[in-house]
Amino acid sequence: MTRSFSITFELDDGRVVGEGASMGETLLNVARRAGVPIDAPCAGNGACGKCRVLIKGGEVKCGQDRHLSKNDFDAGYRLSCISEVVEDLIVFVPQSALAWQNQIRVADFSSGGGALESFEAMKNALLSDEYMADPMFAELELDMCPPSPDDAMADRERLIAASAEALGVDNDCISFSLYALRKLPQILREKDFRVSVLVRKGMIIDVCGSDVSGSAHGIFGVAVDIGTTTVSAALVDMGTGEIAAMGSAGNAQIRFGADVITRLIEGSRPGGVSRLREALVDECLCPLIAGICEKAGVEPEQIYRTAVAGNTTMMHLFLGVYGNNIRLEPYVPAFFSAFGISERDLGLGIHPDSDIILAPSVGSYVGGDITAGVFASGIAEKESMSLFIDLGTNGELVFGNSDFLMACACSAGPAFEGGEIACGMRATDGAITAVTIDAETMEPTYDVIGDDGQLPAGLCGSGLIDIISELFRAGIINAKGKFAREGERIRADEWGLTRYTVMEGDKTLDGGEIYISDADIDNFIRAKGSVFSAVMTMLNSVGMEPEMIENVYLAGGIGSGINIGNAIAIGMLPKLPEEHYHYIGNTSLSGAYAMLVSDKARDRINEIANGMTYLELSSVPGYMDEFIAACFLPHTDASLFE
Amino acid sequence: MTRSFSITFELDDGRVVGEGASMGETLLNVARRAGVPIDAPCAGNGACGKCRVLIKGGEVKCGQDRHLSKNDFDAGYRLSCISEVVEDLIVFVPQSALAWQNQIRVADFSSGGGALESFEAMKNALLSDEYMADPMFAELELDMCPPSPDDAMADRERLIAASAEALGVDNDCISFSLYALRKLPQILREKDFRVSVLVRKGMIIDVCGSDVSGSAHGIFGVAVDIGTTTVSAALVDMGTGEIAAMGSAGNAQIRFGADVITRLIEGSRPGGVSRLREALVDECLCPLIAGICEKAGVEPEQIYRTAVAGNTTMMHLFLGVYGNNIRLEPYVPAFFSAFGISERDLGLGIHPDSDIILAPSVGSYVGGDITAGVFASGIAEKESMSLFIDLGTNGELVFGNSDFLMACACSAGPAFEGGEIACGMRATDGAITAVTIDAETMEPTYDVIGDDGQLPAGLCGSGLIDIISELFRAGIINAKGKFAREGERIRADEWGLTRYTVMEGDKTLDGGEIYISDADIDNFIRAKGSVFSAVMTMLNSVGMEPEMIENVYLAGGIGSGINIGNAIAIGMLPKLPEEHYHYIGNTSLSGAYAMLVSDKARDRINEIANGMTYLELSSVPGYMDEFIAACFLPHTDASLFE
Repeated sequence: MTRSFSITFELDDGRVVGEGASMGETLLNVARRAGVPIDAPCAGNGACGKCRVLIKGGEVKCGQDRHLSKNDFDAGYRLSCISEVVEDLIVFVPQSALAWQNQIRVADFSSGGGALESFEAMKNALLSDEYMADPMFAELELDMCPPSPDDAMADRERLIAASAEALGVDNDCISFSLYALRKLPQILREKDFRVSVLVRKGMIIDVCGSDVSGSAHGIFGVAVDIGTTTVSAALVDMGTGEIAAMGSAGNAQIRFGADVITRLIEGSRPGGVSRLREALVDECLCPLIAGICEKAGVEPEQIYRTAVAGNTTMMHLFLGVYGNNIRLEPYVPAFFSAFGISERDLGLGIHPDSDIILAPSVGSYVGGDITAGVFASGIAEKESMSLFIDLGTNGELVFGNSDFLMACACSAGPAFEGGEIACGMRATDGAITAVTIDAETMEPTYDVIGDDGQLPAGLCGSGLIDIISELFRAGIINAKGKFAREGERIRADEWGLTRYTVMEGDKTLDGGEIYISDADIDNFIRAKGSVFSAVMTMLNSVGMEPEMIENVYLAGGIGSGINIGNAIAIGMLPKLPEEHYHYIGNTSLSGAYAMLVSDKARDRINEIANGMTYLELSSVPGYMDEFIAACFLPHTDASLFE
Repeated sequence: MTRSFSITFELDDGRVVGEGASMGETLLNVARRAGVPIDAPCAGNGACGKCRVLIKGGEVKCGQDRHLSKNDFDAGYRLSCISEVVEDLIVFVPQSALAWQNQIRVADFSSGGGALESFEAMKNALLSDEYMADPMFAELELDMCPPSPDDAMADRERLIAASAEALGVDNDCISFSLYALRKLPQILREKDFRVSVLVRKGMIIDVCGSDVSGSAHGIFGVAVDIGTTTVSAALVDMGTGEIAAMGSAGNAQIRFGADVITRLIEGSRPGGVSRLREALVDECLCPLIAGICEKAGVEPEQIYRTAVAGNTTMMHLFLGVYGNNIRLEPYVPAFFSAFGISERDLGLGIHPDSDIILAPSVGSYVGGDITAGVFASGIAEKESMSLFIDLGTNGELVFGNSDFLMACACSAGPAFEGGEIACGMRATDGAITAVTIDAETMEPTYDVIGDDGQLPAGLCGSGLIDIISELFRAGIINAKGKFAREGERIRADEWGLTRYTVMEGDKTLDGGEIYISDADIDNFIRAKGSVFSAVMTMLNSVGMEPEMIENVYLAGGIGSGINIGNAIAIGMLPKLPEEHYHYIGNTSLSGAYAMLVSDKARDRINEIANGMTYLELSSVPGYMDEFIAACFLPHTDASLFE
């Protein structure tokens, strides 16, 4: 392919990247090839307007679009996904186009009120004798006789004999990893045949000078939650179970689309699975793990075990397995579980004999993040009925108790993370949240995530819930989400949409007006309707009523900091006393932690997965009616929320 | 490092290679860096004269040397190992400098008379029920129901269930390799859920469309003998045990030295182990295996098991393990055995889940080639006493029967393969063999390996045995190996050495005179003396006499085609009736084959290794006396050979 034009990308962070382009190619494609991380939550079909760039030199072929005001268009802003290259270009990529990968708040155990205590409680239970019955690693301090003319035993056989004696087993119960063998001859002689040996399930996987053993040379593991949007990791001291460091990063796959469907489609293209795997592993996981190791002063080679939880699609892309059938009738993944995976299969840059364990999936849209999360939430151990809701980029729900568990996925889409909302964004610095609107004057008041003086940049999930609830309460929008009042903040744009202006452009981070349009409200109502109709469909399938739910556990990014009252008021969550709602933060990560430190917890999570019933909503009679009924404010049957 | 000069190598085979060089660097170093395979059997200490090159442009800093006649020196020939770069150069690398890697005869099972029958006998025994009791691989033909809305079981779990049913075991007895998982989703749908599955010890390691199964898609293995000089491989149909193809190649490590000591020294240098591993794996094994696969029309990915035998040093360098302690008191290898090695550790270019099994070593100088060879020779199953002699680049001997086995290595050096002999070469085209000398006229007659009209290039091991035996018989040399007669073929050179001229330069392949000097004879007498003294030392240690040896088995390159009568006459082999001597060819490769096709044979080889006593000659009292006594023609105690 001849690339006739040269495109220069100037990134907001100062980087400058050059790349060749062919006649008619979209700017987004060129950026992807060049590794310029322009976000395209809608996967480049012009639906989200997130890929706004400024053409500073040359011109592209691109019509105006509802995502661009006339002023912006005249100023040279274009959507890179619908801009075709026809000449050489200089393109400025603003912070807003990179926002999905910037400043992600660590989605840690403590996000969301009570979660830390519940995590601590789980950790203490896990570290009790009951769970730690059979330790994963044995570290032996050996002091051997050096070889002599009368004893020319080979190094490996000498070490095995000494280890077997220390463990009180036969020599042939002990195997040896090639990695350890390659280190062996020199370290034995450097350390004068006094070494410490790390044994995992009968295999010698490492040999170290005993003088660097103990705390200095510790045994570590890493727990990972691979989210569609955010990847979080915790470095764990396998000796104590304590968390040595944590970190998060944006999932670099985001540039191929915000939701799993767009990733699966990209993965179905030639080389797509590798591209997505490399974006995840090389661009996120490796630097993330290296980073938390550095924070804690630990060598990545000290990581001997990794536990990973994520949705079914992420698990496929993590292992580099073709997952496109997940999105095609009858929605069949390539695997639910995978065992015997090791670092050498994946290249995370940790100890080559590190085993990598995965939380099992139960369906195409109920993955390891949910099975791990259900364990972490404890609902599988309770007699009373619980509802577990994980609202991230996807929405998954689990209902039941210690006798039965039923799971389903709702097609909430990315609205709760600000996706497909004109001024939407994730809950990072600059996000507007906790909104109230004066019913009289229609003037809003709100908080902005970030330090004092942080300028607002957009609306995150919890902010959207509040705004819509407030607009509805004040009668500014009606039950169908259409604008019902007039005023200075209610404006029509050139695309025939009506909007409520939250903040004028002159007071925002990137100079664009922050507003919510009736199209955005439609999107959001469909999202909240899909959550509530999923709850009702599960309840109906076992002939139960909302009030039979004892506790509701909210996990995932959206969970933290949403206003439950408002969420009930708009008909997103069932009407229960607020004290029955609990934020439990990133339970996918907590569950991965549990698998990491305890084989018993891992077994229990596999048990939970095997016992869980997967409900494919689209194939449940009556689901569509439930959904349509829920696409009102609060619901066609308002009595449910009174 | 600044490389101020540019060196151009013109190879005999037409290739031209350029490389930078620094002031004072030796040409051999530059050649090694450039990947120009100039042989340096003596590892570049000027001892062997094999690295002769012709300086066509520029001049090097290099004194004359006994390995170069004045004529050759004046003609521009230099030894690359002692030639220092002082300016830009054009260097011609003649065929003779490449000879060690050229035209190697396939060291196959049949080399050496009766070997093929004995191999066939072994093979038939191995393929009998007794050895094949528990098959390594199960190939299942599965015809599964495709998924449906009512059956959205994942691909992996579906295949495991079907396989478990076919094998009559529980699902959880079956594991799945990641390689197979990555192939699974597409192949299931391409083949409409009718596939053939390959299971090894409960693990699904491959999935193929069943229409390509059977003979077209077979299960293959490869048996490999890694010799210090030559690497041989046999591609085996694991279904029938038949050999599909064979091949050999020079061990590219030869450019770092001809014997294991020089390799170990190179391996002790920074990056040396990797350099040697890559020379062996990337330059020899990968192309060799790819080549025999092509010959047989088999895909390398159809190789699911590999069995390797070689000496202790080669096993270390094959696995990339530091082996330098092998050559240092008290001569301790890093390992005798290694288990659980797989293709992913080594990169031979075969099926990634291929397991790679190694023949165990019993000492620093008695390796897997010997334990495998002893099994193949059958001496461990006989009641009568046998002597097993493997004379390749190294000499190893095993003595005993089904009750006991004792092994030792003799420091024969490379003389039997022509190493450290001025006109020595391996038994390839152009090698002089089967020599007789007229006692009257001193005129030689001989055969030359190769087609009719092949010009002689040098003297191989069997030729050297004959010449020395004939020179001694004719009284041309005395019991000390010194020249005792005068004549037209007996000449002194400018280095004070006396030589017997076998062939004038005008009738040889590369125009150099072919001769044997008293220095060469010294070398050879020490080599033959080391063999015989090893035999005597082993016999003495159990109070036995040579005539108690029932059978002598000659294995390895030298074995084939040597004149037993002459070998006895010069005191190299014990005096026994010639019919008690048997050539059994490359038993290292036969033994590797046995391990490949039969786990029981593999177990037996490990048993043999565990039961074998390793005799470190240098530490046996009286060995030196035996050696000195054997450094005469035939021996100080001539009665041993009358």
